[in-house]
Amino acid sequence: MSDKPRLNVGMVGYAFMGKAHSQGWWTAPRFFDLPARIGMAALCGRNAERTSQAAAQLGWASVETDWRAMVARDDIDLIDICTPGDSHAEIAIAALRAGKHVLCEKPLANSVAEAEAMAAAAAEAAERGVFAMVGFTNRRVPAIALARKLIAEGRLGTIRQVRAAYQQDWIVDPQVPLAWRLQKDKAGSGALGDIGAHIADLAQFLLDDRIVAASGTLETFVKSRPVQADGSGLAGAQAGEGFGDVTVDDAAWVLGRFAGGAVGSFEATRFATGRKNALTIEVNGADGTLFWNLEDLNVLNYYDNRIPAVEAGFRRILATEPETPYYSAWWPAGHIIGWEHGFTHQVHDLVTAIAAGEQPRASFADGLHVQRVLDAVERSAADRGIWLDV
Amino acid sequence: MSDKPRLNVGMVGYAFMGKAHSQGWWTAPRFFDLPARIGMAALCGRNAERTSQAAAQLGWASVETDWRAMVARDDIDLIDICTPGDSHAEIAIAALRAGKHVLCEKPLANSVAEAEAMAAAAAEAAERGVFAMVGFTNRRVPAIALARKLIAEGRLGTIRQVRAAYQQDWIVDPQVPLAWRLQKDKAGSGALGDIGAHIADLAQFLLDDRIVAASGTLETFVKSRPVQADGSGLAGAQAGEGFGDVTVDDAAWVLGRFAGGAVGSFEATRFATGRKNALTIEVNGADGTLFWNLEDLNVLNYYDNRIPAVEAGFRRILATEPETPYYSAWWPAGHIIGWEHGFTHQVHDLVTAIAAGEQPRASFADGLHVQRVLDAVERSAADRGIWLDV
Amino acid sequence: MSDKPRLNVGMVGYAFMGKAHSQGWWTAPRFFDLPARIGMAALCGRNAERTSQAAAQLGWASVETDWRAMVARDDIDLIDICTPGDSHAEIAIAALRAGKHVLCEKPLANSVAEAEAMAAAAAEAAERGVFAMVGFTNRRVPAIALARKLIAEGRLGTIRQVRAAYQQDWIVDPQVPLAWRLQKDKAGSGALGDIGAHIADLAQFLLDDRIVAASGTLETFVKSRPVQADGSGLAGAQAGEGFGDVTVDDAAWVLGRFAGGAVGSFEATRFATGRKNALTIEVNGADGTLFWNLEDLNVLNYYDNRIPAVEAGFRRILATEPETPYYSAWWPAGHIIGWEHGFTHQVHDLVTAIAAGEQPRASFADGLHVQRVLDAVERSAADRGIWLDV
Amino acid sequence: MSDKPRLNVGMVGYAFMGKAHSQGWWTAPRFFDLPARIGMAALCGRNAERTSQAAAQLGWASVETDWRAMVARDDIDLIDICTPGDSHAEIAIAALRAGKHVLCEKPLANSVAEAEAMAAAAAEAAERGVFAMVGFTNRRVPAIALARKLIAEGRLGTIRQVRAAYQQDWIVDPQVPLAWRLQKDKAGSGALGDIGAHIADLAQFLLDDRIVAASGTLETFVKSRPVQADGSGLAGAQAGEGFGDVTVDDAAWVLGRFAGGAVGSFEATRFATGRKNALTIEVNGADGTLFWNLEDLNVLNYYDNRIPAVEAGFRRILATEPETPYYSAWWPAGHIIGWEHGFTHQVHDLVTAIAAGEQPRASFADGLHVQRVLDAVERSAADRGIWLDV
Repeated sequence: MSDKPRLNVGMVGYAFMGKAHSQGWWTAPRFFDLPARIGMAALCGRNAERTSQAAAQLGWASVETDWRAMVARDDIDLIDICTPGDSHAEIAIAALRAGKHVLCEKPLANSVAEAEAMAAAAAEAAERGVFAMVGFTNRRVPAIALARKLIAEGRLGTIRQVRAAYQQDWIVDPQVPLAWRLQKDKAGSGALGDIGAHIADLAQFLLDDRIVAASGTLETFVKSRPVQADGSGLAGAQAGEGFGDVTVDDAAWVLGRFAGGAVGSFEATRFATGRKNALTIEVNGADGTLFWNLEDLNVLNYYDNRIPAVEAGFRRILATEPETPYYSAWWPAGHIIGWEHGFTHQVHDLVTAIAAGEQPRASFADGLHVQRVLDAVERSAADRGIWLDV
Repeated sequence: MSDKPRLNVGMVGYAFMGKAHSQGWWTAPRFFDLPARIGMAALCGRNAERTSQAAAQLGWASVETDWRAMVARDDIDLIDICTPGDSHAEIAIAALRAGKHVLCEKPLANSVAEAEAMAAAAAEAAERGVFAMVGFTNRRVPAIALARKLIAEGRLGTIRQVRAAYQQDWIVDPQVPLAWRLQKDKAGSGALGDIGAHIADLAQFLLDDRIVAASGTLETFVKSRPVQADGSGLAGAQAGEGFGDVTVDDAAWVLGRFAGGAVGSFEATRFATGRKNALTIEVNGADGTLFWNLEDLNVLNYYDNRIPAVEAGFRRILATEPETPYYSAWWPAGHIIGWEHGFTHQVHDLVTAIAAGEQPRASFADGLHVQRVLDAVERSAADRGIWLDV
Repeated sequence: MSDKPRLNVGMVGYAFMGKAHSQGWWTAPRFFDLPARIGMAALCGRNAERTSQAAAQLGWASVETDWRAMVARDDIDLIDICTPGDSHAEIAIAALRAGKHVLCEKPLANSVAEAEAMAAAAAEAAERGVFAMVGFTNRRVPAIALARKLIAEGRLGTIRQVRAAYQQDWIVDPQVPLAWRLQKDKAGSGALGDIGAHIADLAQFLLDDRIVAASGTLETFVKSRPVQADGSGLAGAQAGEGFGDVTVDDAAWVLGRFAGGAVGSFEATRFATGRKNALTIEVNGADGTLFWNLEDLNVLNYYDNRIPAVEAGFRRILATEPETPYYSAWWPAGHIIGWEHGFTHQVHDLVTAIAAGEQPRASFADGLHVQRVLDAVERSAADRGIWLDV
Repeated sequence: MSDKPRLNVGMVGYAFMGKAHSQGWWTAPRFFDLPARIGMAALCGRNAERTSQAAAQLGWASVETDWRAMVARDDIDLIDICTPGDSHAEIAIAALRAGKHVLCEKPLANSVAEAEAMAAAAAEAAERGVFAMVGFTNRRVPAIALARKLIAEGRLGTIRQVRAAYQQDWIVDPQVPLAWRLQKDKAGSGALGDIGAHIADLAQFLLDDRIVAASGTLETFVKSRPVQADGSGLAGAQAGEGFGDVTVDDAAWVLGRFAGGAVGSFEATRFATGRKNALTIEVNGADGTLFWNLEDLNVLNYYDNRIPAVEAGFRRILATEPETPYYSAWWPAGHIIGWEHGFTHQVHDLVTAIAAGEQPRASFADGLHVQRVLDAVERSAADRGIWLDV
């Protein structure tokens, strides 16, 4: 191992996504033979004490409290951005300009303008061999990688329809406080950008196609919520008042038309009681159908229309075979893996691409296109749901 | 039994729906203690020989080849209409005026104008104790009747969302010929009216609410198809040419807003390969969620949000208990019933209402409202998907 | 239809099984083109008034209160026996000797001696063109008929194991009274004969093989129960005492060895809380596995081991295609049928065999073999579970 | 963290189980606040080069090629035994005598005599504050821990039955070579000890009860298999001959009687085609039923019999809530975890018990009892399946 190059990582943010990314950085080299040795060099957060605690727990070797300082460090090769969307553009562009590779959580940015600037910076950096990737981790689930392979091989024939939903229920109670994810200035949008972005990317990834027109409707069921104890992040509201406006969507419905002729329906909601993390997607082609659910992520359901109907049916493929993408690194067949290994595989794919001098996907250009779809949806929603080109 | 009044039925049409209705007429009195003795008096069809054969097989006592003659018969009390939608209005209105009760297959009509005339005729007849019903049989599935009861009791709390689809795949092959269901002049519309009408009615029935605004998109994936051997029903096409235009939608996507504030998404398609008869509907309320699938119709899935989350989950209720609506007439718990008994229960509900002098539901007014929803969808689809009031 | 021969049926018993059989007799001719016209000639029961009510409800043309009188009637061609097991032998043998075909509910008898006498009478009658059949209706479920076909075609390769259970829960409450099914003199045995007989027959039917050795264990969890209000059927107990002994098994566990080398495990229980009518069976062969559940009877699950493992999985076949056995008589694909149509198909198969002069299956010889298996199980259970030849 | 005591681990064996255990040692301290700092001090294997490679990949700081040398090291506090069963007793006893805590993979030993010696050594060591644990990791799955909690609270009422199976299919092909797991001198037994031990322990754990009598049947479907290329481990066979005898069972069927009165059926097989790692267990009590499947390990199915039957059903609990045992360390609800974290949680429980000076469970005494059950099964199987006391 000693002659492998070293890739030192600095990560910004240590909340939910920071924990998931950290896990990816320490696990990937244990299960995969990566082309570089990973150094978990530095963790960056605003609060020094809490950041130090997190670094100790999550295995980061040093701490920074200013992301600019981290970007300036010579010993760091890659910046991993796990902060809310409003800071993505600034950090990513600075890092790329400083010659650091970048892994940026989705959605890429809070606006098309930011995303365009980021994609431009990434394109410019790529010419210098410095690469940027956006973290659509669901692409890395073995069952999804298998699904894409089947579609790419033509097993579904002409694709006609996509039916996807991302259903959660964590704010169904009106007493859930006004977190940053419910504030437009921080989060950009609500269910649409947070989880709708996942299904838009996933559909495009599976079909290897792009959404070129969209119609959208947004709804905020609960229009004001209690302010968090510290009043943080409440633009235009007095903390003392007790309640603040929810400025993002609770649920979003999107229709999209793909360049290749397929039509997709997408639904993202935080009000589907009982659905905890139910990203479901179905792809219907003339020769078959695929169905997948993130809550049961090791399973891919496949209807093969070329089998005589009398014995055809949805086949519950437990995607844990040695030949399943990513799976040879893991356990014998039937031993399922968990949600977090989308992040493990993301590290594998990112490091492999960097070592090969190739553009990792999803690229910032891919992320920009998702951002344009979300933007078309918001414009459509503001114009009575009319179909608009992306 | 001898002192029960007799209710003699004349049925028009003997294809798929005629067979299903016949089964309802002969089965209901065997399993339920109906308030009238059912007479399967006459079957009407244009072809005398084929109609006679069907009558013998299906148990009808006599045959007519002109529905007007059947409507004129004194010994017939109820006309059951199982023909394509373009003939519903004429037959139903004539029958009601002749003092016959009417059961009419869905969708009520091919246009709002026809449906309005029918609803007016039904309202006028009802004053004379003559009743009309439209055949939304999915209302009669025990699991659905149980679902409606739970919602009516407030078990789901405030309803936020409905997510429904009716997925079939019978025309995914471009070589499937141009049947009457694919021709607008006969069928009115395609997936929208045929199966989309079912989910619109079912959602309104479950919520006991009405869709007041809609946005719609329609798509015809396969735009021309082989003409059937006899060239029948091909408006504006020469049979010899081999192909004719598909003039209805293959798939329809609808968003609807309910008067009570809920938002529904509805998808009807004949291109979902592997989905044979998959009418799925999910209702999300603040206190719970219900999910049901027609392909597994004895099961109602229920997430009760008032149970502590650590032990909450979707409960797979096998709706075959003595206390389940309709089920005491059937078998011990766990012995499932089939799709056709929606028609059996429809007979039970219709005959019970008539005997009690009460309006059976779904009324023609209910059917008219569904028609208005479908109409709004078609107008929206023709105007780039814009939201329109119903 | 008028030149078809007439087959007049007389049925004994009108409880649960009588209702299910009646349904079969009236439904089969409506959906299938049978080679005979069915006459539902007479219903026999001890209580004249209740029998008359049942006959009116279930569609039987006349009533008898003594089965001997019914067997003696010239206008009756077939006797359908739906009584408890202690009367099967006497009625069936008398009917066969009187030249009547016989359909007898399972289990064939309460003892091997009775079953032997019945099989002998059936063999003798068959030489005269008079046939006997035992009612193992699960053989007639389309998904099961498809499963047998796949196995017969060699699709599973060498069969290694069968894993079956019939789980119910109707007596889990100790306050459930001492019904005839819980008394050995009436029922012969408990879960073993009532529902264990079903799985033994079903396994033998699917494999087209016979169980040649068995090991058994029986358990009665609740050893005494309240006497029914009328004290009926309480051998050796004073009704006034309130409780009587349960003299049959609550649950039975059986291992069986098939002539062909497979090993089967069978479990029958009335104490599996929440399992209402869960007859599940799995057959494992070197080349594939089949799994089926009576509570979801339209579905056959099939794992095809010849498909590469990376895309293999249990295929959920919805057995409702035109090519599915029995299904062309029914509805379009995806419209499921109910439990009762095992009885409908049983009528079809029985009438077809009689018209062709062929032995219907399951024959009384088949039923006798099941009885011998049950007997070996009881002897094994009485001898510490030792393996015994059947 | 600096004032926490250090616990240095030395592990023997680095195949499948060694990889899984390593993962547990490095992951547990990242997600849980353990009472000790874990040192992955040494990995022991016979082949120095391969052991060094494994140590580098899996994160062990040093290498030993003789377990005795590792046991003798002063800097090691705990020996983790991941070798085949024939070496467990010798290593574990030596380690305990040397004052090292021991974690030993299941089954505890290859014979009752060995297991007794191990349990005696563990009891003696425990008096000195040195503890031994056997690795029944399925106890640590959150859904299982929840199940045990529900049962302990009396939620199922009187337990009547357990129905469990561990189905795999990895040797269904007769060409699978004669691995050490198929040789009695190495593995002790086949499916019985390898996977049957898991279900016996799991049932006893869930019920908090012990199996006191058993009846068993064993079967070897494929009696000889190709010898592995290096002929390793073939006692009494010439490698050149090409085939060697399979000396263990391919499948095992066990009935067990619990001290508390419940009856359990257990089936372990390596011939259930399509079942990859299907450990299923159902517990039926008077007040409810629980069902779980290792292939879908985040889900616990629960039927609550105290809910009115009309709305009761199996509740699919996604055991990923903050209140779910072990789960607060992980992700938001709905984000599932994988099979390997049974090992992560095992490290948590072991380290916590050691730090508290308490006996971790499963103890060697627990493992000994499982061994006695397996022994009774083997003796029963050799005596025609007769019931024997454990």
